[in-house]
Amino acid sequence: MKVDGKHTRTIWVEADGWSVGIIDQTALPHRFTTIRLATLADVARAIATMQVRGAPLIGATAAYGVALALRADASDEALERACATLLATRPTAINLKWALDEMVAAVRNRPREERVAVAYRRAAEISDEDVAINQAIGRHGAKLIAAMAANKQPGAPMQVLTHCNAGWLATVDFGTALAPVYVAHDQGVALHVWVDETRPRNQGAALTAWELGQHGVPHTVIADNTGGHLMQHGMVDMVVVGADRVAANGDVCNKIGTYLKALAAKDNGVPFYVGLPSPTIDFSVSDGLTEVPIEQRGADEVATMTGRTADGRVETVRIVPEGSAVANYAFDVTPARLVTGLITERGIVAPRRDALAAAFVERAQGTSRSVAR
Amino acid sequence: MKVDGKHTRTIWVEADGWSVGIIDQTALPHRFTTIRLATLADVARAIATMQVRGAPLIGATAAYGVALALRADASDEALERACATLLATRPTAINLKWALDEMVAAVRNRPREERVAVAYRRAAEISDEDVAINQAIGRHGAKLIAAMAANKQPGAPMQVLTHCNAGWLATVDFGTALAPVYVAHDQGVALHVWVDETRPRNQGAALTAWELGQHGVPHTVIADNTGGHLMQHGMVDMVVVGADRVAANGDVCNKIGTYLKALAAKDNGVPFYVGLPSPTIDFSVSDGLTEVPIEQRGADEVATMTGRTADGRVETVRIVPEGSAVANYAFDVTPARLVTGLITERGIVAPRRDALAAAFVERAQGTSRSVAR
Repeated sequence: MKVDGKHTRTIWVEADGWSVGIIDQTALPHRFTTIRLATLADVARAIATMQVRGAPLIGATAAYGVALALRADASDEALERACATLLATRPTAINLKWALDEMVAAVRNRPREERVAVAYRRAAEISDEDVAINQAIGRHGAKLIAAMAANKQPGAPMQVLTHCNAGWLATVDFGTALAPVYVAHDQGVALHVWVDETRPRNQGAALTAWELGQHGVPHTVIADNTGGHLMQHGMVDMVVVGADRVAANGDVCNKIGTYLKALAAKDNGVPFYVGLPSPTIDFSVSDGLTEVPIEQRGADEVATMTGRTADGRVETVRIVPEGSAVANYAFDVTPARLVTGLITERGIVAPRRDALAAAFVERAQGTSRSVAR
Repeated sequence: MKVDGKHTRTIWVEADGWSVGIIDQTALPHRFTTIRLATLADVARAIATMQVRGAPLIGATAAYGVALALRADASDEALERACATLLATRPTAINLKWALDEMVAAVRNRPREERVAVAYRRAAEISDEDVAINQAIGRHGAKLIAAMAANKQPGAPMQVLTHCNAGWLATVDFGTALAPVYVAHDQGVALHVWVDETRPRNQGAALTAWELGQHGVPHTVIADNTGGHLMQHGMVDMVVVGADRVAANGDVCNKIGTYLKALAAKDNGVPFYVGLPSPTIDFSVSDGLTEVPIEQRGADEVATMTGRTADGRVETVRIVPEGSAVANYAFDVTPARLVTGLITERGIVAPRRDALAAAFVERAQGTSRSVAR
């Protein structure tokens, strides 16, 4: 998508042909800056500090992290260490594990002198596949939006609510949950997006609002507390969110607070959709609510807030009294019973074990085989 | 309750015998400062800018506002202007209207030369009545907490979740929703409070955490998005919140986001209680969801955050991109069907039209009469 009118992806190989460029998403929306990653440690830090975030982009970044690690040391031991280091950066996102498994499968049986080139090639493919998947999600979801828009009064925009950032900044390009919004908008469907600010890290206010603004999509930032009230008063036609992991039973692990919006959608008859690429589905997790580990992050994310002062400095301010404890659960799990549908690259899939297994039969069976091994 | 070990109310008449002292709650938790109010305009500004907030404290402050206005001009016209000015400061809180009606009733038929003294006396009574009511709410609610605590494993603290600030800072003293917590804690019941930070104004992180800390009640601040996850995992035994207005049918208007917590409580079988003084009940509103006007406040409350920098300055930072629209609905309405019980000064009342009318028969009938007039 575009930044200041210039097409930009969230990750790329630099002109030197080997180092990796990313957008420093922690500096948005106040500064657009890029960072050059040259080592495994650079990549692990970028993921852990959320300079890159969003499940698909984490996967692509980790893939390049393996390539950079192999460039320094192409041994089996180094490959194993690199995967362990990268896997530890963000325990919840399933794409991270998926991308690392892909990289290991690609290089494992290659001679050491070929491994670096193979790794860069596979990382580039993972990036390109992500873009193609997201474009397909966008096409399927946009049909859904257009059909709902046709039932609205002429001129009334479709009101879409989203939580966190599952836009192009969360992926290599195009977005997951927001891909349908971008496609529908580009097709001329009138729409407006309610953007949850998404405490504690404010990815909604900082990233979703910024990228929608760059693309010209009308939007309004709201506190996370607001969505229920809007739905009670008919001001939301559809909720669409991303996912960090979807279990085989259709339970959706996503940014903390997603579950509350799903409850409000159910209570008010508002369709609740999840946009996701199929690598986000973890067929090895039978029940999302009881089995997905929920990452706890540092207290400072809740206790402080970073933004720009009136005179243009970026400052971090503390908003919790000294001496008060803070807890920071990063994700929650929305039970499948609250989800209307999963918008995937293969179309809209019901959030049910049988429907998911039928739509992604090769992945569902792959897991069965690996369990049997 | 205590501030730095010294008993303090949230509002008092200064040593000069006429001007009114308040705590500047916008400076908490970083600075404890008091402000002297000498005119109607001072009072209106203090309410509108939320230097005082919380429905009961707004009522008491408005009462003193009438006294200060009459001190400058004791005419009927001045009385009417004062009430109109004060009523316009915060449209949602019913206590404001209730307190103004009380003040008008007290002074209306008095000669001008007596009005000032009568007004100060009635304002002091309103303040003292608030404290007595809150102590009664505390006693009734503490019994409830003790009964629930008796069913927990020995040593496991009662886990209470609260939203916004309905503690002593929201009242003249003692609190509404938190009065049961303070009484139970003082009686030796082991408890821990999950404190929603309560965006956009952060009254939970700034005020509830601060006052619980001053009183020594164990607590943990969480992002507003977190409560659903905690309830899904059995980490909340009870939710207790305050109310800005309760309709005759038991619908509860309270800080935006309350409805989402009530949905999560219902979905997980967690009791959801509302602590409120009976002046908060508005028998003239038959249906809360459709009839209570919801105040919209300035965009800056959502677009910015104020806190303390590492080197001790209080700074306001912007967290939303320039050019993004912002909406700021201050309250929502929780339907009575999601409320387990109303903790009032007369005991626990079911959130039903008949139960409320029976418990507060004189107020319910008073409204019928005034409607018939």
